[in-house]
Amino acid sequence: MIWFTEYQTKNTGLTVRVKEAKRFNSQYQEILLLDTYEYGKMLVLDGAVQTTERDEFIYHEMLAHPALIKHPNPERILVIGGGDGGTVREVLKHQSVKEVHLCEIDGEVIKVSKEYLPTISNMLDNEKVKIFVEDGNKFLDERKGYYDVILLDLSDPVGPAEALFRRAFYQKVKNALKEGGILTAQTESPFLQTEYFKSAVLEIKEVFKNVGTYLAFIPTYPAGMWSFTMASDDIDIFENSNMERIDKLNTKYFCDKIYISLFSLPKFVSELIT
Amino acid sequence: MIWFTEYQTKNTGLTVRVKEAKRFNSQYQEILLLDTYEYGKMLVLDGAVQTTERDEFIYHEMLAHPALIKHPNPERILVIGGGDGGTVREVLKHQSVKEVHLCEIDGEVIKVSKEYLPTISNMLDNEKVKIFVEDGNKFLDERKGYYDVILLDLSDPVGPAEALFRRAFYQKVKNALKEGGILTAQTESPFLQTEYFKSAVLEIKEVFKNVGTYLAFIPTYPAGMWSFTMASDDIDIFENSNMERIDKLNTKYFCDKIYISLFSLPKFVSELIT
Repeated sequence: MIWFTEYQTKNTGLTVRVKEAKRFNSQYQEILLLDTYEYGKMLVLDGAVQTTERDEFIYHEMLAHPALIKHPNPERILVIGGGDGGTVREVLKHQSVKEVHLCEIDGEVIKVSKEYLPTISNMLDNEKVKIFVEDGNKFLDERKGYYDVILLDLSDPVGPAEALFRRAFYQKVKNALKEGGILTAQTESPFLQTEYFKSAVLEIKEVFKNVGTYLAFIPTYPAGMWSFTMASDDIDIFENSNMERIDKLNTKYFCDKIYISLFSLPKFVSELIT
Repeated sequence: MIWFTEYQTKNTGLTVRVKEAKRFNSQYQEILLLDTYEYGKMLVLDGAVQTTERDEFIYHEMLAHPALIKHPNPERILVIGGGDGGTVREVLKHQSVKEVHLCEIDGEVIKVSKEYLPTISNMLDNEKVKIFVEDGNKFLDERKGYYDVILLDLSDPVGPAEALFRRAFYQKVKNALKEGGILTAQTESPFLQTEYFKSAVLEIKEVFKNVGTYLAFIPTYPAGMWSFTMASDDIDIFENSNMERIDKLNTKYFCDKIYISLFSLPKFVSELIT
């Protein structure tokens, strides 16, 4: 039997039984495409699980929908990272959206996802979507005041995404937002990546006025406890706005109840970031 | 390097690096006491992780506190299972509690916990606590209308706890409660033990009028997504009662925000049990 183990820290990991494995090497990282018994197809970058067919809905829904619901009229959306296409697919469920830019540094991730993960990548060819195979840092230098919502769908802050968890980058994100714009970033596991988590949230707080962190259960991510951080200067993200739009989204995780209780953190998680 | 892997299903598992391992065999099960690098001491019964020093607070707080807060004046408490003592420790944080009965079938689990897990078992010798090394099923036959709160702190529904996830057992629990009494049971992982989860919740619904399920992030349990089900005939468990008592509990996970949003389930979890 073939087993793949992601060592989420040097002392613990997730192990999954594998039917078949394919390896690709891009200029940035090792890309593994595993066919697993428990989770279906699984995309692994430099040894870290990025997405699986079985639980990807949780991460992608929870990254995209809270900010898009809180925004009164999200039309122009930017996703940085997210080459698998799952976040773009969720963004396109919002009828107001006119234009989605995807900025992914590694074109090979997009290619592998289009070929092997069709249920995740199937909206990448939609006419509203424009793909930029570029470094997110440089991409943002040329965009000012353009986007309603920016979603940071990044891999861990080691390797290609490292510079994208820093204050200077969050400042560029803010500059690229229109007035009333909202950022949501994935901000790692509060339990097993505590320092990354704290640092990302605290850097975002240095840049934006209103900042809130929320969690979701993601079985294949470290500790199964994953965080996202939403930020805006002009929008009160703590209000339960525009709830009537939730029902139309056709989701499996996100719903009214999750939206209303979004920022209800366990005590120890709150204490890490206050 | 020594690694221990719990196969949470036949196709996925949690793996942890181990400093030292001790094995005990009781008449009911294999008991492993592992000293791990990531999670501290870990208690494993028949291959399944029961508790670890690092994340035990989450499970024990979330099993005990919601029901004890919702009850107007919890005095007599019964814990079935829970030989490690963590649930008893949390119960004793409530000042109204006068008497805690612990009914654990396997005396060896209590002995190992007292010797090797002192931060978890340290309240088992408290004068309010009485320990019964008995089968929970038989124990309840002799108790009618006695307890304010009953907590089912059971291992998985294979092995010694199997009969304790069935309707006939929940009926006995109900008979052992006083008027206004509340049950909370751990009800497995909705993600990786979907059938156990559904069956436990639906059986509880057959027996009690008001039933609510909630989740907590438990990194060392299957999928990191764990469920608890609360039930009562006479108490409206969906009201946020007695919130003023929460602050005094000295908890690390449970808090006002978790209490208010307790029953806010992800959509797919709600749909499994309605």
